[in-house]
Amino acid sequence: MEILSTVASAKAQSRAWREEGLSVGLVPTMGYLHGGHASLIQRSLTQCDRTVVSIFVNPTQFAPGEDLATYPRDVLGDTELCRDLGVAAIFYPEDPEMYPPGFQAQVAVPGLSQYLCGRSRPTHFAGVCLVVLKLLNIVAPHRAYFGLKDAQQFFILSRLARDLNLDAELTACPIVREPDGLALSSRNARLSPPERAAAPVLRRALDQARILLEGGERESRHIASKALAIIQAEPLARLDYFEIADAESLAPVDLVEREVLVAVAAFFGGTRLIDNFIFPPRL
Amino acid sequence: MEILSTVASAKAQSRAWREEGLSVGLVPTMGYLHGGHASLIQRSLTQCDRTVVSIFVNPTQFAPGEDLATYPRDVLGDTELCRDLGVAAIFYPEDPEMYPPGFQAQVAVPGLSQYLCGRSRPTHFAGVCLVVLKLLNIVAPHRAYFGLKDAQQFFILSRLARDLNLDAELTACPIVREPDGLALSSRNARLSPPERAAAPVLRRALDQARILLEGGERESRHIASKALAIIQAEPLARLDYFEIADAESLAPVDLVEREVLVAVAAFFGGTRLIDNFIFPPRL
Repeated sequence: MEILSTVASAKAQSRAWREEGLSVGLVPTMGYLHGGHASLIQRSLTQCDRTVVSIFVNPTQFAPGEDLATYPRDVLGDTELCRDLGVAAIFYPEDPEMYPPGFQAQVAVPGLSQYLCGRSRPTHFAGVCLVVLKLLNIVAPHRAYFGLKDAQQFFILSRLARDLNLDAELTACPIVREPDGLALSSRNARLSPPERAAAPVLRRALDQARILLEGGERESRHIASKALAIIQAEPLARLDYFEIADAESLAPVDLVEREVLVAVAAFFGGTRLIDNFIFPPRL
Repeated sequence: MEILSTVASAKAQSRAWREEGLSVGLVPTMGYLHGGHASLIQRSLTQCDRTVVSIFVNPTQFAPGEDLATYPRDVLGDTELCRDLGVAAIFYPEDPEMYPPGFQAQVAVPGLSQYLCGRSRPTHFAGVCLVVLKLLNIVAPHRAYFGLKDAQQFFILSRLARDLNLDAELTACPIVREPDGLALSSRNARLSPPERAAAPVLRRALDQARILLEGGERESRHIASKALAIIQAEPLARLDYFEIADAESLAPVDLVEREVLVAVAAFFGGTRLIDNFIFPPRL
């Protein structure tokens, strides 16, 4: 397995593979890999000849006061996992390699970024767009893989890829969960034991919403009030949002008449967790 | 010569050439081609196996009230010129092919875009960045060619290409001029005969500045006052700006101690023209 730390070496390696006629898959991550990342890597391994995992805690997607400094890291464990899985190369750049002095470029998908997580993190998705566009340009993958826990991120990146005429095909993979329903996230490692015990409330609230939708309920405020009651009954959870959004525009909907994204975000202590489902479920 | 009007056909053609091992050059234009464009095309023809000229009057780089509707067009003449020169393909998309419904992506290089033309055209360069990034992704050229009449544009696009880790090499070509010194521009066609006779005043003002710099003058306000006097003596010219800017940051300089861009913009009737030189001259 190659460990590539410079843009030039990553470009050279991926172009060499492409010239050999090999297909390249990219799994962009911020490291501290878990079973969700592993599922993306495994999908890439089945679909592409060579899989590249990027590990980069991207500073431009954190606002001042967010958890950039405390974001969990374990590059040695990540490397071992990638090697065991059969990853061909890790791209692991330092910050100045990605954002050298004088860096100025900005990228955004403002419409989709204004809703849901964009309300409390107004600069987050521009940072995500920027780093993913750079990673796609550096690794030049045929396919890139993203987890649906970050559904809004995937919708935004898909819009970006279409709007900018990128060649890479972006693929979304299902959320992977703990046995108690908590969506896997690197940030779960930062929960105290009581917070960890409380965190599955997000999934329970979403389950309640899904049951109502499956039963024919279509009024968002009815669905939201039942789901919110579940979260409010958990004293360790501090709600950021619970929203039923049009799956195309991500704008909130009053009445569920088309595909929707039902999404929730809440703080457990200083740790912000998110979860969601798409209704009706995609195959 | 191929005439490609869809993104898909342009992508397919350029990828086919690349797979054959042929190098591809792109000359992005808004059409109404003149000798400046021809010099870019000729440069591409000497350096690349296949040259693509894009012709697209990009709406996102015009602000409301600017000259989008009256921008001169002559696609038949352009096609003939390209064919005569030996261009392999023209990419000539309609607006909805480039900006389909739901389009949202934004791209910018805010630092370099705030100065010079960015002062009077604050949204212009974001539109240029957007369309050129799309064209580079669509045509995937090895090299792309730009004229130095739009020096700020070239500096911004070079920064964009570096920051976003694009593969294409961006090349700047010298300004091409009429015998009386007027820089070639598609907009020259919109000058009335008296305005056309007045327009070379821009070049004369720049010549005055260059003579002072070559003579050792280093104070921007001294240089500017002599140059401005020349423009103000021309009643048909309405100054937008005359500026001596640091060639790296494009910020105005008081004292010329490093490479500078000396740039001027003025209206002649409703037509805005620009011109510039770099000092000391690059080879």
